[in-house]
Amino acid sequence: MTEWTEPGVDDPFGLHNLPLCATRDGWVGVRAGDLILNLGAAEEAGLLDAGGAFTRETTLNRFLATGRPTWTRVREQLTDLFTGLAEAPHRATVEAMLHPVDGTALALPFEVADYVDFYSSEEHAKNLSRLFRPDSPSLLPNWKSLPIGYHGRAGTVVVSGTDVPRPHGQRKAPDEERPSYGPSRRLDIEAELGFVVGAPSTGPIDVDDFRRHVYGAVLVNDWSARDIQAWEYQPLGPFLGKSFATSVSPWVVSLDALEPARSAAPTQDPPVLDYLREAERYSYDIRFEVFWNGTLVSRPPYAGIYWTPAQQLAHLTANGAWARTGDLYASGTISGATPEETGSFIERTWNGAHPVRLDDGSTRSFLLDGDTVTISAAARCSGGPADGAMVGFGEVRGTVVTRV
Amino acid sequence: MTEWTEPGVDDPFGLHNLPLCATRDGWVGVRAGDLILNLGAAEEAGLLDAGGAFTRETTLNRFLATGRPTWTRVREQLTDLFTGLAEAPHRATVEAMLHPVDGTALALPFEVADYVDFYSSEEHAKNLSRLFRPDSPSLLPNWKSLPIGYHGRAGTVVVSGTDVPRPHGQRKAPDEERPSYGPSRRLDIEAELGFVVGAPSTGPIDVDDFRRHVYGAVLVNDWSARDIQAWEYQPLGPFLGKSFATSVSPWVVSLDALEPARSAAPTQDPPVLDYLREAERYSYDIRFEVFWNGTLVSRPPYAGIYWTPAQQLAHLTANGAWARTGDLYASGTISGATPEETGSFIERTWNGAHPVRLDDGSTRSFLLDGDTVTISAAARCSGGPADGAMVGFGEVRGTVVTRV
Repeated sequence: MTEWTEPGVDDPFGLHNLPLCATRDGWVGVRAGDLILNLGAAEEAGLLDAGGAFTRETTLNRFLATGRPTWTRVREQLTDLFTGLAEAPHRATVEAMLHPVDGTALALPFEVADYVDFYSSEEHAKNLSRLFRPDSPSLLPNWKSLPIGYHGRAGTVVVSGTDVPRPHGQRKAPDEERPSYGPSRRLDIEAELGFVVGAPSTGPIDVDDFRRHVYGAVLVNDWSARDIQAWEYQPLGPFLGKSFATSVSPWVVSLDALEPARSAAPTQDPPVLDYLREAERYSYDIRFEVFWNGTLVSRPPYAGIYWTPAQQLAHLTANGAWARTGDLYASGTISGATPEETGSFIERTWNGAHPVRLDDGSTRSFLLDGDTVTISAAARCSGGPADGAMVGFGEVRGTVVTRV
Repeated sequence: MTEWTEPGVDDPFGLHNLPLCATRDGWVGVRAGDLILNLGAAEEAGLLDAGGAFTRETTLNRFLATGRPTWTRVREQLTDLFTGLAEAPHRATVEAMLHPVDGTALALPFEVADYVDFYSSEEHAKNLSRLFRPDSPSLLPNWKSLPIGYHGRAGTVVVSGTDVPRPHGQRKAPDEERPSYGPSRRLDIEAELGFVVGAPSTGPIDVDDFRRHVYGAVLVNDWSARDIQAWEYQPLGPFLGKSFATSVSPWVVSLDALEPARSAAPTQDPPVLDYLREAERYSYDIRFEVFWNGTLVSRPPYAGIYWTPAQQLAHLTANGAWARTGDLYASGTISGATPEETGSFIERTWNGAHPVRLDDGSTRSFLLDGDTVTISAAARCSGGPADGAMVGFGEVRGTVVTRV
């Protein structure tokens, strides 16, 4: 029996958050404070009603597919269930379904359908252009007309905590005559925010229908082997430099929880085409922190990203492509204006020209075997009753291991 | 009751082929001549034993996952079942499970996990370079070192016969100052061969383990909106220019059936790196035909493709990425040396400079609404008892319709 204590609004996992997860024990849950409620058990006991979408489910997909009316209803039910639980008659019943976060092994929260990675931070795109294409203009001509993106490998999306074997592949440094095959020598990260499609579509999704289709968001680390990527990416884009692993956080934070953290999105100049024009344009004030072996090395700010998730989804389906439950699309690396706000190490160290010093006194340019990267984030609410409260995403963490 | 007649070896769907399918009625089958056997019913009746992999299955995934020993055993069982069936005591039992191909609605034969599209025809790569990048060398420096590829959209892979609404998107012709949004003006096809992973892996697949993991092949039409693609593809590759639809044939032809059609693969110069070096290098003598509204416009030859499917799979997983049951990877557009052997219309008409004349007297450069493209193919066996026999793939067909 786990004892219930109601988390406060100062807890990033307070009742204003209620992120969902899946566990390795084969049930799905919702987090409140430091506890996880088994949603399948709660639904079977009649404590909430998601139309059976939690009962005996091992991933969130069935619930994600239900759509916004059910998402909203269940959120209200959960708020009611937890509020005042300490004095409620069903306290013991609920406590029997609660599990401490510490000690519960978490799984990939949903089965990924298609995975798309965008490239929507202007600072990141400019930095990568300067590093990869020093002779070209800093932004390609199409960048401000559409959210550039590509499909990644859905099958190698893994949950936080999964080790990442160093990828091997072909790489050819500029001073090498021929490519060789071996372990990547320039292994990097990309700190991103990923959006999870719940309600599917049969075709294009209007830019103003974002909240009708997207359930919520996760943290993404799009591990990147820069040397493999640099040699392979012309003309069809990144492939093996990315496809070995993409890590996501175990908590899916709902758009409802993020509502109080809405913030202004950058003004777009030139104006975008009609299908990308939002009736109400906004971003989210989500603040990332990147830790390299425990040392805080960067604080990428999501709010300033040029293309919003509503625009990304509208673009992704504009050609007629439909969206499926479990589709995951990521923001692209989040970088701010300074080196201390960049979301990748190639930017943070300027391709190794300015290594970072870790707390143990060692320096790094790219990842060494044994290194652990932890990306955490929280959204900051402003205005309203939750003013100043944080909505936690938790973290996405991975350790680079030597490939056996 | 459907009457059984044993197909001859001159029938591309004779007993040397035995391709598998899934039907819209929710069962999986095997084709023999012009008939389809309900494999689930046959297994339930004890006529064959795939360990339950057909029983009550609506797609082939469960059977694909079983691996080569089961694939081989079931193929032998099917050959035994059909051989001499006309005089066999169980003839009536089997006939009750047979359905005419005409009149059976076919479905996507397997659930697609990840979809990868390669770019492995040297003639195609050279043609596209000349058309898209007239100022660059005809092959990029990496092309002969690795099989270039990218991930496509698994969710929009559809079965032959599915209409293809004309995609809309951003396009900017060289003489236009700004991009605009609207129906693609340069809608094209790509005739390809797609390989279907059956047995999954937990990491890299050795180039000589191709047959252990791949069950068989399907025909692929990778519909391509050239104007959308040209504007979006720098620097992350094709995205919306491809993701609106990819059509596949309903028949999955096994590698076993293709064995007698092995043929010499092109010599690779410069020599490839070790992980791409095959103990036994071979291609398949598969001959494609492309029909535009019924007019035969091209005959792309698969045999000459530069990177073999064994090399493609080894490369695809070389970085550590694992393969899943249902992974589909396609050859890339198949083009031979002459315009009459090209697998796309942008090559066939040289970007519209040389339109093709159809049998009704009209001419075409790109696809018009209402146009139907049918790609068919068959493998030619040489040597052995099946010398000269054809192994049919059937066709992949689609009609372009106006988007509503």
